[in-house]
Amino acid sequence: QFRAEFLEIHPYDQAKIFEEQPEEIRFLIYTYLSPEEIAEVLEQVDEDLVGEFITEMNPTFAAQALAEMATDDAVDILNDLDKNKVASYLSLMKKESAEEIKALLHYEEKTAGSIMTTEFVVVQTDQTVKQAMRHLRKEAPEAETIYYIYVIDQSKQLVGVISLRDLIIAEGDWIISDVMSDRIVSVQVGENQEDIAQMMRDYDFLALPVVDFQNHLLGIITVDDIMDVMEEEASDDYSKLAGVSDMDRADDNAFASASKRLPWLVILLFLGLFTASIIGRFEATLDQVAILAIFIPLIAGMAGNTGTQALAVAVRGIATGEIEKQGKWNIVKREAITGLITGVSCGVLITIIVYVWQGALFLGLLVGISIMATLFVATIAGALVPMLMHRFKIDPAVASGPFITTINDIISVLIYFGLATAFMNLLL
Amino acid sequence: QFRAEFLEIHPYDQAKIFEEQPEEIRFLIYTYLSPEEIAEVLEQVDEDLVGEFITEMNPTFAAQALAEMATDDAVDILNDLDKNKVASYLSLMKKESAEEIKALLHYEEKTAGSIMTTEFVVVQTDQTVKQAMRHLRKEAPEAETIYYIYVIDQSKQLVGVISLRDLIIAEGDWIISDVMSDRIVSVQVGENQEDIAQMMRDYDFLALPVVDFQNHLLGIITVDDIMDVMEEEASDDYSKLAGVSDMDRADDNAFASASKRLPWLVILLFLGLFTASIIGRFEATLDQVAILAIFIPLIAGMAGNTGTQALAVAVRGIATGEIEKQGKWNIVKREAITGLITGVSCGVLITIIVYVWQGALFLGLLVGISIMATLFVATIAGALVPMLMHRFKIDPAVASGPFITTINDIISVLIYFGLATAFMNLLL
Ligand SMILES: [Mg+2]
Ligand SMILES: [Mg+2]
Ligand SMILES: [Mg+2]
Ligand SMILES: [Mg+2]
Ligand SMILES: [Mg+2]
Ligand SMILES: [Mg+2]
Ligand SMILES: [Mg+2]
Ligand SMILES: [Mg+2]
Ligand SMILES: [Mg+2]
Ligand SMILES: [Mg+2]
Ligand SMILES: [Mg+2]
Ligand SMILES: [Mg+2]
Ligand SMILES: [Mg+2]
Repeated sequence: QFRAEFLEIHPYDQAKIFEEQPEEIRFLIYTYLSPEEIAEVLEQVDEDLVGEFITEMNPTFAAQALAEMATDDAVDILNDLDKNKVASYLSLMKKESAEEIKALLHYEEKTAGSIMTTEFVVVQTDQTVKQAMRHLRKEAPEAETIYYIYVIDQSKQLVGVISLRDLIIAEGDWIISDVMSDRIVSVQVGENQEDIAQMMRDYDFLALPVVDFQNHLLGIITVDDIMDVMEEEASDDYSKLAGVSDMDRADDNAFASASKRLPWLVILLFLGLFTASIIGRFEATLDQVAILAIFIPLIAGMAGNTGTQALAVAVRGIATGEIEKQGKWNIVKREAITGLITGVSCGVLITIIVYVWQGALFLGLLVGISIMATLFVATIAGALVPMLMHRFKIDPAVASGPFITTINDIISVLIYFGLATAFMNLLL
Repeated sequence: QFRAEFLEIHPYDQAKIFEEQPEEIRFLIYTYLSPEEIAEVLEQVDEDLVGEFITEMNPTFAAQALAEMATDDAVDILNDLDKNKVASYLSLMKKESAEEIKALLHYEEKTAGSIMTTEFVVVQTDQTVKQAMRHLRKEAPEAETIYYIYVIDQSKQLVGVISLRDLIIAEGDWIISDVMSDRIVSVQVGENQEDIAQMMRDYDFLALPVVDFQNHLLGIITVDDIMDVMEEEASDDYSKLAGVSDMDRADDNAFASASKRLPWLVILLFLGLFTASIIGRFEATLDQVAILAIFIPLIAGMAGNTGTQALAVAVRGIATGEIEKQGKWNIVKREAITGLITGVSCGVLITIIVYVWQGALFLGLLVGISIMATLFVATIAGALVPMLMHRFKIDPAVASGPFITTINDIISVLIYFGLATAFMNLLL
């Protein structure tokens, strides 16, 4: 009765229960369930655990389970196993399943090919609605979605699509080519997954067909996998903004997470040393007016903050396509004016505060003017860097917050000590 | 023939074309299209433009179009118009449509109620599959999705769900209560949209039913709207990490974008002044060893960077639920060890560099030990702040990068100058 109970709940819940079982119970489950049933569970298991589960199964059983899974999920699992294991599982499958999986194993990560699956439903242009419905009923248990039926011609080129919605309200003897829509939105197999997610979101599709350059239908991408892509891409941008090369998984140990953060920190350490050497050049100024030092974190910090703000706005704007639409120069101009406004506001405020607090008018003016100039330059820098990266086909999200912050440290220190040295006589 | 051409393309493309037309052409389009046809277009029009378009239409035509739209989209538009206009549009509609929209207008933003729509298909438990299919065909043109059919009992409580996939493979004379699944996953009307998105992503649903506390079916949430929620939430977290209170839209003018960034900058300015006043307390130390100042940006910068890294990891971990699973104390412990490892690595490195570069062993040691202690504390702070916020039911994403960075500026300066003052005799 465990079997009956277990199979009645949703595969996601099955997977969560399964993940928590000790080894002995998992082995029992492998004997209770058919390869087809375990395949449904494995499709929902955490990708970090599934490889282990597959490997602990009897190889023939594992190969059968992999063959029963949606190809995209099978491919994801196999891509994380080592080559010999993959070859042995493939050799244990029926030839047809093995071929299908093999074809998908070689697509580059983050392309349409790497997230598509091959369980789609196709009909021919000259079939009737009734024939199509019969075909659909037969394919329903296997297909990844039956809500779109793709139409191909004799040369297997994609020529149309019908939604099940349209199919069920059509008359049985109508010909497919008359009821299908021939305005098909499809994606190329090499297309970037982030752009595909954007398309899916714009058009509100539940699935998108993937074609090669000759318009042959290769697979479909379903909305559930696109939700995962969206999450992955958002998480990726978020970590980059924070300067974590690859977002630590919470189950990492401290050494793994330190090793992911250290590369960034070391780069930033050297940039910081460069900043130090710049201040070092103004040692004479510092020796004379040591109090200058107390405003360094304030000025550098403000520069870092405006830079990060401008950066984030630019990166988002590039991702959403807003920036293309507005024109880059208009954006830079807007950022420059924004930097001017925030700079003047903060500059005036700080001048007054320093004057009141320290009673030093010239020091106040120096700090105020430095903030003004710094915010202006830092804002432009924050916007310009990701746009230039985009121009040179580098992912703008790589321009992380810490990087911009450190660049702006340098800019701010140069401005502050440059001005201080130039007007030294007023400060003494 | 414009009409025929236009209606054949996808509503999203229609909307993009429509948005670009000058006023005169838009007015022509209003006369060419029926309220039902314009409703399809308006559902896809950018939310910042759609209010303007509605207002420029003849009010009766606008009211009809609103009534024809999916209720969730109509409600989104009406929520952005002023109260008098909303009342007048509602009074111009058929009573039934007006009632439906009115019911949705009052749900709180970002809850299930605010993103659900009422165009769902329901059947009764005692109907046959054939009756259900007939009902479905009738509802298909209006329904938001026909791929899930919800089953209610006499008291209108939600008791089951059938997918169209299961319906088309069932025999015509079977009874709904025998083919439906009674393990329904539903959400409460007040539930947070981010949690709903997570559920949708876990269970791979195309729609989720929304119920009140008595389990009455109130509406459904469809996956296309969840994709928009995911984008909105991701964008929100991203802007908060960057310290932009409300992500600037790229079409904002400079004044609008400056006014969104200034609040943060002013808060940070005052925090920066606090940092300055702390360094001010060490003026005597600075006067004696002015060269100390050159390492301020380096130390403060490194503290800010590690803090932001730890923050981002913690915020993501909270969002994905990983942190609940692992236990907060384990995470803090891991972060502490991570901070120790990165601190010792960077500290040793910087000591050697400063010694070689400046030939000053004690200065090198001072900077190195400061970095070590700072990275350790800053990493813990970065992880702890969002976790505490989460504990006290504040959205941890509010703990933005600039905020943590500035807090860590203060910590780092205290450690650095504290140590320098304590060991002053060694530096001189
Ligand atoms: Mg298969
Ligand atoms: Mg894949
Ligand atoms: Mg959409
Ligand atoms: Mg899939
Ligand atoms: Mg999947
Ligand atoms: Mg990306
Ligand atoms: Mg900083
Ligand atoms: Mg309606
Ligand atoms: Mg809404
Ligand atoms: Mg999923
Ligand atoms: Mg909707
Ligand atoms: Mg929508
Ligand atoms: Mg959120």
